[in-house]
Amino acid sequence: MMTQISVEKFLDDLASAAPTPGGGSAAAIIGAMGAALISMVCNVTLGKKGQESAASEMQAVRDQSEKLRATLTAMVAEDVAAFDALMAAYRLPKGTEEEKGRRLEAIQSSLRGATETPLACARACAEVIALSKRAGEHGFAGVISDAGVGVLAAHTALRSCALNVFINAPSLKDRAFADQAVAEMNQMLETCARLTESVFSHVRGRLG
Amino acid sequence: MMTQISVEKFLDDLASAAPTPGGGSAAAIIGAMGAALISMVCNVTLGKKGQESAASEMQAVRDQSEKLRATLTAMVAEDVAAFDALMAAYRLPKGTEEEKGRRLEAIQSSLRGATETPLACARACAEVIALSKRAGEHGFAGVISDAGVGVLAAHTALRSCALNVFINAPSLKDRAFADQAVAEMNQMLETCARLTESVFSHVRGRLG
Repeated sequence: MMTQISVEKFLDDLASAAPTPGGGSAAAIIGAMGAALISMVCNVTLGKKGQESAASEMQAVRDQSEKLRATLTAMVAEDVAAFDALMAAYRLPKGTEEEKGRRLEAIQSSLRGATETPLACARACAEVIALSKRAGEHGFAGVISDAGVGVLAAHTALRSCALNVFINAPSLKDRAFADQAVAEMNQMLETCARLTESVFSHVRGRLG
Repeated sequence: MMTQISVEKFLDDLASAAPTPGGGSAAAIIGAMGAALISMVCNVTLGKKGQESAASEMQAVRDQSEKLRATLTAMVAEDVAAFDALMAAYRLPKGTEEEKGRRLEAIQSSLRGATETPLACARACAEVIALSKRAGEHGFAGVISDAGVGVLAAHTALRSCALNVFINAPSLKDRAFADQAVAEMNQMLETCARLTESVFSHVRGRLG
């Protein structure tokens, strides 16, 4: 499992010419870091005297950010699997008409997976961004900059996922699915760009 | 060493209420991921037939991105040390006038470190962003989205470092140093925001 190796080994693997891990895996980990930072803001706030009025909100946010952190961490392996499946499909034999048909079918099926995986990752990142608004508003001022780092990380992960959706969707023969995926991705990009900058400005304003 | 633990353990530590690792450490790792992705684009391009004209440029970019990756990875520990030194200074005794004086001196000295460390991290991220422009222009099209993820990661790391500069600089008594640090940070934020969006647009255009 790629997330059980050390941070340094992951960085070595990322830098190498090996096709995985690549940008998709990096995006999932950066998104998971964003979720972890939102959890940290909640955990610190829950332990501070004078922050009792924020407790129920911080517990609710942390429950969700911890679920999203687990989801995003698991997506590192899903990204690698989706990419490997696509590469394996392209390498299938294409000598006979029957082989050609089977190969094209395998490519289409794995292209769909390689579109759905980053789309699901982007949805999780959009949820982290929404949570960061609540953490940035109700979190303890002493750790509020961590909510700012969290929202930026989740937004970078979301935009990175978008690149993989935009790479794979155009080759899909199922145009209804592909158009819907691109439309949903564009909608998330637009909404989250605005929300991220608003949370970041709010956090910067609270630094004092 | 925080970068020798597993990715999952790092995420657990980041999510916990413990003050370190926090946003500063996350920023250094995200910046290192940005550098690693630029190295990956270069390494893949250097191994492709038909990309020979880009070879010397890719080698030059990779030499620098690998140095920056090492620098940014080492900055995780520096961020933790700078934060710990500041916390230790605030906890010094303040019973007598002499103790008060020593405590204030220690706080000022560690505040300076806690401003210089994120500023140095931001400078390294700005260099990664500059390299991503070259990787995005000359890298092999099949991995060009990784240059897009790389530039976003480096930019998020840079903006995260800025928050720590803005938190610590205002408390510094050495106003000349503090004003210079904030001015340099603001200058990097402005230049890098423009450059990041320009590289990202270029990469998105090359996805085809």
